[in-house]
Amino acid sequence: MSAQTFLTTGRKIIAIGRNFSEHAKELNNAVPQSPFFFLKPTSSYLENGGAIEIPRGCEVHHEIELAVVIGKNGRDIPASEADEYIGGYALSIDLTARDLQLKAKKDSLPWTASKGFDTFTPISEFIPKNQISDPANVEIWIKVNDQYRQHGNTKDMIFSIPTLIEHVSSIMKLEVGDVILTGTPKGVASIEAGDIVTAGIKPEGYQEDLLQLKFDVVDRVGGFVHVK
Amino acid sequence: MSAQTFLTTGRKIIAIGRNFSEHAKELNNAVPQSPFFFLKPTSSYLENGGAIEIPRGCEVHHEIELAVVIGKNGRDIPASEADEYIGGYALSIDLTARDLQLKAKKDSLPWTASKGFDTFTPISEFIPKNQISDPANVEIWIKVNDQYRQHGNTKDMIFSIPTLIEHVSSIMKLEVGDVILTGTPKGVASIEAGDIVTAGIKPEGYQEDLLQLKFDVVDRVGGFVHVK
Ligand SMILES: [Mg+2]
Ligand SMILES: [Mg+2]
Ligand SMILES: [Mg+2]
Repeated sequence: MSAQTFLTTGRKIIAIGRNFSEHAKELNNAVPQSPFFFLKPTSSYLENGGAIEIPRGCEVHHEIELAVVIGKNGRDIPASEADEYIGGYALSIDLTARDLQLKAKKDSLPWTASKGFDTFTPISEFIPKNQISDPANVEIWIKVNDQYRQHGNTKDMIFSIPTLIEHVSSIMKLEVGDVILTGTPKGVASIEAGDIVTAGIKPEGYQEDLLQLKFDVVDRVGGFVHVK
Repeated sequence: MSAQTFLTTGRKIIAIGRNFSEHAKELNNAVPQSPFFFLKPTSSYLENGGAIEIPRGCEVHHEIELAVVIGKNGRDIPASEADEYIGGYALSIDLTARDLQLKAKKDSLPWTASKGFDTFTPISEFIPKNQISDPANVEIWIKVNDQYRQHGNTKDMIFSIPTLIEHVSSIMKLEVGDVILTGTPKGVASIEAGDIVTAGIKPEGYQEDLLQLKFDVVDRVGGFVHVK
């Protein structure tokens, strides 16, 4: 087990909701008073270059997010010590079947299906911790068919990464290879079969992106059908 | 990776909601028209003999459930072939911070925290598949301080295990060591520090329980506080 092998050995993905106020507002949600989160299954990981699948009948939104990869087991981690538990980072997309999520919210049901389809967590290779000196000053962007959709900076997070680690680890212990998706800036919108999704990450001090991602979008063959 | 080692190598726990009509009714919920589910983190597993921790300020309910352990990777598994993907079983308790869950439902937020605290998935050792010839006819029971709280039979499930496997695998692929908690019969109620929780499982044809579980209940020291 190591943080580097999180894609194949990590056991949970914790995704933070509404951690950028402009994003909370664009979906008509209140800005949260304390962090909240949901789980995505590790079976939803999709490596760079893969094909994002749109489930039948679903409207799927992209959410570009900085991922924190846990490097050390911990519980009740104080924010002041959180940095020791960070093993590295990754660039990820928290794909969301928005129509299913809205229905789940209306019915007071779990968000799980809407967030957990296969291919719904496209993610980069492991980024060693020393390549991002300040995770609170990182530009992240996503384009669809070469048009910018989201272009934000982690400095606009409502709850900092140390605060998120403190909060989550007060509820569930963090283990090596666990991933925290830290929330998305404004600009979420839908993708469709035939689209090309690209994304990049540029930490403070870099002249160019540290890495970029590219994914095709295809229709899922078979599987779940969202009947309206 | 094998089904037998699910406690340490499994990567997801899929928990089915409201799969017994008498239980749906006791919480004033509608009986579902199709299955729904949420994820619990594998970090919430607690082995037999361990101590269940009550998070500060939380009202915690027991839900006794038959767990299915996946033995073969699969996607879009038809109900007619689901049995091939079952590697074995376990007896489990889906612990729930009911007050937090009710608040999450009221606010249309994820159930994740209410279901995901450390120690919130007490579970037995692996039960080999051949020890339960008919998973649709299994008695499960739970006692608190030697008083019966729940005593149901899997024959009263609304959605059968093959139907659950078909549904879940149409959304997220199933992998060896994944666990499906199949829902709880009526009788959920709260536990407190000092209680002793025991549980058992008796498949059709057995004269005595196949196995029993025993857990102490203690107050969580530190960690999350539910402020009302
Ligand atoms: Mg997100
Ligand atoms: Mg349950
Ligand atoms: Mg108490």
